[in-house]
Amino acid sequence: MGGVARGARRVGGGRGGVGARRVSLLVVGSLAYDTVETPSGRAEEVLGGAATYFAYAASFFGPVRLVGVVGDDFRPQDRALLADRGIDLRGLTVAPGRTFRWRGRYEGDLNVARTLDTQLNVLERYRPAVPAPFRDSRFVFLANSPPAIQESVIEQVAPGALVAMDTMNLWIDGARAELARLLPRVGAILLNDQEARMLSGEPTLVRAGRAILRLGPKVVVVKKGEHGAFLFSEDFFYALPAYPLEEVTDPTGAGDTFAGGVMGYLAQAGRADAAHWKRAMLYGSVVASFTVEEFSLGRLRRISREDVDARYRELLSFTAHP
Amino acid sequence: MGGVARGARRVGGGRGGVGARRVSLLVVGSLAYDTVETPSGRAEEVLGGAATYFAYAASFFGPVRLVGVVGDDFRPQDRALLADRGIDLRGLTVAPGRTFRWRGRYEGDLNVARTLDTQLNVLERYRPAVPAPFRDSRFVFLANSPPAIQESVIEQVAPGALVAMDTMNLWIDGARAELARLLPRVGAILLNDQEARMLSGEPTLVRAGRAILRLGPKVVVVKKGEHGAFLFSEDFFYALPAYPLEEVTDPTGAGDTFAGGVMGYLAQAGRADAAHWKRAMLYGSVVASFTVEEFSLGRLRRISREDVDARYRELLSFTAHP
Repeated sequence: MGGVARGARRVGGGRGGVGARRVSLLVVGSLAYDTVETPSGRAEEVLGGAATYFAYAASFFGPVRLVGVVGDDFRPQDRALLADRGIDLRGLTVAPGRTFRWRGRYEGDLNVARTLDTQLNVLERYRPAVPAPFRDSRFVFLANSPPAIQESVIEQVAPGALVAMDTMNLWIDGARAELARLLPRVGAILLNDQEARMLSGEPTLVRAGRAILRLGPKVVVVKKGEHGAFLFSEDFFYALPAYPLEEVTDPTGAGDTFAGGVMGYLAQAGRADAAHWKRAMLYGSVVASFTVEEFSLGRLRRISREDVDARYRELLSFTAHP
Repeated sequence: MGGVARGARRVGGGRGGVGARRVSLLVVGSLAYDTVETPSGRAEEVLGGAATYFAYAASFFGPVRLVGVVGDDFRPQDRALLADRGIDLRGLTVAPGRTFRWRGRYEGDLNVARTLDTQLNVLERYRPAVPAPFRDSRFVFLANSPPAIQESVIEQVAPGALVAMDTMNLWIDGARAELARLLPRVGAILLNDQEARMLSGEPTLVRAGRAILRLGPKVVVVKKGEHGAFLFSEDFFYALPAYPLEEVTDPTGAGDTFAGGVMGYLAQAGRADAAHWKRAMLYGSVVASFTVEEFSLGRLRRISREDVDARYRELLSFTAHP
């Protein structure tokens, strides 16, 4: 395409479309080897991790920059899998030791994972360093990490980026002060329904979403798994059912690929107004619907942007009003 | 309006609008006194029952005919409450004895009621008799009852009506053969997500909905409480988030008022094509959202059709695609 403009463009101010500046998207988070049991079966030592899922999902929309750490046991074919998708791995540290491991099980209710074992390994001492060529990223996703680490990434990127974050119960419980300091510094938070209730202390998602807006982010996205998602902002509210699936094999990575679809679409469009956020939510939902159809990246590896667009149109038609 | 046409009109063939024939809507089901505990409080011996909730909800859209039974303890003010809404009570039997009682509790998950006590009382020996002037009803709702009793109502109404039904776990478990005989005779079934899984034996709602279509009904509506609803038919699929609420006081009656809104709207429109079914689902969702804001009919009693329409427009805007 080559039409890269020189000047910085404000998020939300771009025109998008053919020939527009390719706005850069950065993700900082974990790469993992997962062992997962679900009612459909079991997958052992498969490629996982929030940043992995996010980056792969976002790569359907444009280039992605990844910052994270793996151990010296990280398989060359997994590295190649990401690189081949246009994921820039100059921010991927290979540290002596083992890659982060997660072991989990899903039982009747596929919305809830039971963590059986977590081995942080190389993740334990890792502090993300954003390489100089990544610092001009205009869209940044802070995948689930301790909030102090997430905040350290904000310090390393140029001001004016749209920074979105995820979090989890562990930090809501154990690092609330750090989280409270971080929230006013991000443009958006994407979290699941349980986390939204926990962070806000509010029983209904509508109250929870509004309460979290008051903590700082301009946009709050509450992910409800198979039940879709809500978007709260000062200007508008958006409710979206999930793409309806006949089979769910493994929900692992659904939330991160949802976020990857959302941010990937916004970065590709180069703006984040209400219409783009809504379309981004639809794309996030669609990409996540593919993710859960197989273990690990199995399904995503076999689809193209055309498949994503076809399911996007289907989701639109399923939810279009008369 | 007075413009009542003589000839019967096929469901789906009407024009609707001002001056059109007022298509008649019949509901057959229970009236009850409920005692309900929720995290918000407790209501004792309040007016409830599936037919009560359905009829009240449908009365926002047009006249309703009710067939059911109460005991001689049924309070005159409760009868007046229904009659004042234009609900035709010529099919309401007053039997010696006590009105049906239900006692239930909702805990953390407001989607699931725990039944503490059921006293059938006059309902035990009751067999619904549809009065002659009700038999030409073009829209009929069979609220939850033993399927054999529901089927006996179909025998009493003129052919060609759009008959919709509800059911519950008790009959899915204990009267499956009767249910299987009934399902091909109804045009639509409205049931909740647990019931849909149970009736179909399918784990996901998409498979469940499609499986239930194969059992006979032309339309299957799966209600998911706060998560909205799905509509399955041979011709189209529709997914709808629920109207998002800040507070839920008491979910009792949500499903029946959803059905009342759906059927009330269809009966008012006088047709049931895809566009009307979709709008009907939106109206059902809106009416149910009011129901759960207070115990019993508390909230519905204080709203008008204008309030319903205002929230309908809001729900449209919350879910409209860019």
